[in-house]
Amino acid sequence: MDKKCIGVDVGGTSVKIGLFEEDGRLLKKWEVRTRKEEDGKHILPDVAASIRQVLEEEGISFDQIKGAGMGVPGPVLPDGSVEICVNLGWHNVNPQKELSAMLENIPVRSGNDANVAALGEMWQGGGKGYRDIVMITLGTGVGGGVILDQKIVSGAHGLAGEIGHFHMRDEEKEHCNCGGTGCLEQVASATGIAREARRKMASCETPSVLREYGDKVTAKNVLDAAKAGDALADEVVEVVCRYLGQALAQASMMVDPEIFVIGGGVSKAGQYLIDRIYGYYDHFTPISKNKAKIGLATLGNDAGIYGAARLILE
Amino acid sequence: MDKKCIGVDVGGTSVKIGLFEEDGRLLKKWEVRTRKEEDGKHILPDVAASIRQVLEEEGISFDQIKGAGMGVPGPVLPDGSVEICVNLGWHNVNPQKELSAMLENIPVRSGNDANVAALGEMWQGGGKGYRDIVMITLGTGVGGGVILDQKIVSGAHGLAGEIGHFHMRDEEKEHCNCGGTGCLEQVASATGIAREARRKMASCETPSVLREYGDKVTAKNVLDAAKAGDALADEVVEVVCRYLGQALAQASMMVDPEIFVIGGGVSKAGQYLIDRIYGYYDHFTPISKNKAKIGLATLGNDAGIYGAARLILE
Repeated sequence: MDKKCIGVDVGGTSVKIGLFEEDGRLLKKWEVRTRKEEDGKHILPDVAASIRQVLEEEGISFDQIKGAGMGVPGPVLPDGSVEICVNLGWHNVNPQKELSAMLENIPVRSGNDANVAALGEMWQGGGKGYRDIVMITLGTGVGGGVILDQKIVSGAHGLAGEIGHFHMRDEEKEHCNCGGTGCLEQVASATGIAREARRKMASCETPSVLREYGDKVTAKNVLDAAKAGDALADEVVEVVCRYLGQALAQASMMVDPEIFVIGGGVSKAGQYLIDRIYGYYDHFTPISKNKAKIGLATLGNDAGIYGAARLILE
Repeated sequence: MDKKCIGVDVGGTSVKIGLFEEDGRLLKKWEVRTRKEEDGKHILPDVAASIRQVLEEEGISFDQIKGAGMGVPGPVLPDGSVEICVNLGWHNVNPQKELSAMLENIPVRSGNDANVAALGEMWQGGGKGYRDIVMITLGTGVGGGVILDQKIVSGAHGLAGEIGHFHMRDEEKEHCNCGGTGCLEQVASATGIAREARRKMASCETPSVLREYGDKVTAKNVLDAAKAGDALADEVVEVVCRYLGQALAQASMMVDPEIFVIGGGVSKAGQYLIDRIYGYYDHFTPISKNKAKIGLATLGNDAGIYGAARLILE
């Protein structure tokens, strides 16, 4: 009989947990609060207790569980250890070893959360049916994950998929969180799009519906206005899609996936956004018509639990 | 007993062939002319005849041969077939199947020559001892190959490693061979470096030893002059290394190899070139100090036969 698997997505505010069939069906999902006090030492015990409780409620024994996967918001070394995870307060821990010990020694595997979310989208989301995908998450920042032959490419130093920190724009003067300037993230994240709109409003007199939001303008405002034909918003979206298209072109000529999967809050703009990215992506890949498609993520905030569960099936 | 393997590097002018021990020792290498007449139909029979002759001379029987690998100057599909190879005149052939049939059905595997050269450098060259490398070849063009977990990443459409066609420079007006403008290849290939020097000479009055070469200036002239302190040549090398450093940074944040291996004629400038690329590579990867090194290729024109032989050991 097929076993079940557990996906744990550890975030800074809450831990999402999902119970899955091996074929990818989500049986149940729930959350526990992330207690970051005392260097986050309560997080894993809380997760373990919650899993035990749910399994008991569902009448599932540990020998019916294939294992658990876990997404961690920071770099994870190949042996599963975490040197430092600022978001959780962890220092020099091996969360997969610890969680396994708390759960009757079931196998536990862990990975960086952005990579794990990409694996989830490959398994049951926008990348379903593909083996090679690159996921780009346009949220507060710009994250990425590279999946080749159905496996996460973490890189030799955990930097694989950090497409948000591609240097794209020489004229940028402000610093990115990474310490650089002109990163893709500074233009194409939700934060970046809003900033771009504020700059554009300050630099010209073009009338725009965005002006009523003033400094509170959001990426959603910008994309909605651009869709409705607002000229200033359109200029902002044009810049965003130009750099995204260029970055995807470079990613294509580096690992050449079957499909790019675009997720995160900004991707709620849907096919409209994809179509505009396509224009530049095509422009920057004249080398071949035969190349990766661009599609939308479909799992939303559940991508992490799906990918975490999939980790244990590798 | 360990078997021997054969590496075949099919080029537009000559086919290089090497006989190897499985541990990577090159026992013998030789060449045959590439007869491109009649859609290149003589190429594989010539190669097979030459291999048979050498094995006979060396007293090696086919059951001592593990197989042969072959690098092809164009895209190779996953099943080894070649839809079109302009350099050889091939259309819709499966060279690995054909060569195998001509050589007592020993296993034959093939791959794109740039990828195969990267595999060679990983096996016995500048990337020896590493599992994850990205090779960049600075020759007439800029080629690349991505090796992860000791295997070639060809990509879903054969575009992986086409780092030479990363769009880097918006202000470029001339077209690249790929149809784009502002590709890395247009600046960092031997051809690109020479062109950059000609442009620089035309655009300023700065005295330079390069002026005596006029329009015949070569990449080697430029690098030699820069090493000797020539100001104009230095400016050219600065531009070249800036774009190379930026492209390597992007490659690092995409697949994060252990090492970049720089090959091709331009790389004869040696550690001087590497050091100058490092400056920009570091500048464009503030995200982490812990990242891929940059080193020199060591196999020169033999990288292709090494990598081809290694293909059969995968």
